Amino acid sequence: MALPHATSGQVIDVRPLGSKMTEAVSHALFKTEQLELIRLVLPRGKGMPEHAVHGPVTIQCLEGSIEVHAHQKTLTLQAGELVYLAGGEPHSLRALEDASVLLSILLKHNGNHDFAGNALTQSEMAQRAS
Amino acid sequence: MALPHATSGQVIDVRPLGSKMTEAVSHALFKTEQLELIRLVLPRGKGMPEHAVHGPVTIQCLEGSIEVHAHQKTLTLQAGELVYLAGGEPHSLRALEDASVLLSILLKHNGNHDFAGNALTQSEMAQRAS
Repeated sequence: MALPHATSGQVIDVRPLGSKMTEAVSHALFKTEQLELIRLVLPRGKGMPEHAVHGPVTIQCLEGSIEVHAHQKTLTLQAGELVYLAGGEPHSLRALEDASVLLSILLKHNGNHDFAGNALTQSEMAQRAS
Repeated sequence: MALPHATSGQVIDVRPLGSKMTEAVSHALFKTEQLELIRLVLPRGKGMPEHAVHGPVTIQCLEGSIEVHAHQKTLTLQAGELVYLAGGEPHSLRALEDASVLLSILLKHNGNHDFAGNALTQSEMAQRAS
């Protein structure tokens, strides 16, 4: 499902999806040269395999709970918790229960992720995550 | 109140403060060369005067509601709503009711805001916001 990207000044709803989660799919909320914001929709047990991107990322759990593996440890994020990961830090994530996640990725000025490790394109990420 | 900054891989609580809001103050959650994340605590009627920063920002209302003026219009953000503003876009904000807000600011590589318009330092922002 291709959803239009938001533009500067446009309100974006990042409230929990609740019962609508079963119909929702992961999608980019917007992408500029410097920043991409993605809402991941992760049914329980699904996630993203280990990968790394050049720039820093933030991972904010909007609902449900997820497990994030990074820095040789496993963190649990509940709804309303956020983690920042430095650029280049390999990480993976997995939903402990149905979850949606706000992912922000800082891009290089060329607008690419410039993957630092096991490269996944955004479409690969979306495929693997959904 | 100086709170320690989070580091890469450390869980940050951005849940609503609820009744603890009266004791809370605006503070930076972390700051790296590329990204600063701030939790603004805005009692009803308080806000930030118009200013602009070089990089893009995102403004996410965590609780309460705020008014954001940008692009010659006034938006209302309820809890769970977010707006992205392009770099250099002058904006101001004001709490319509007691609110806390997650503000992310993309920095230049020198780690400065590189204010594009009516310059406010971060401490000025925190002072004016609190």
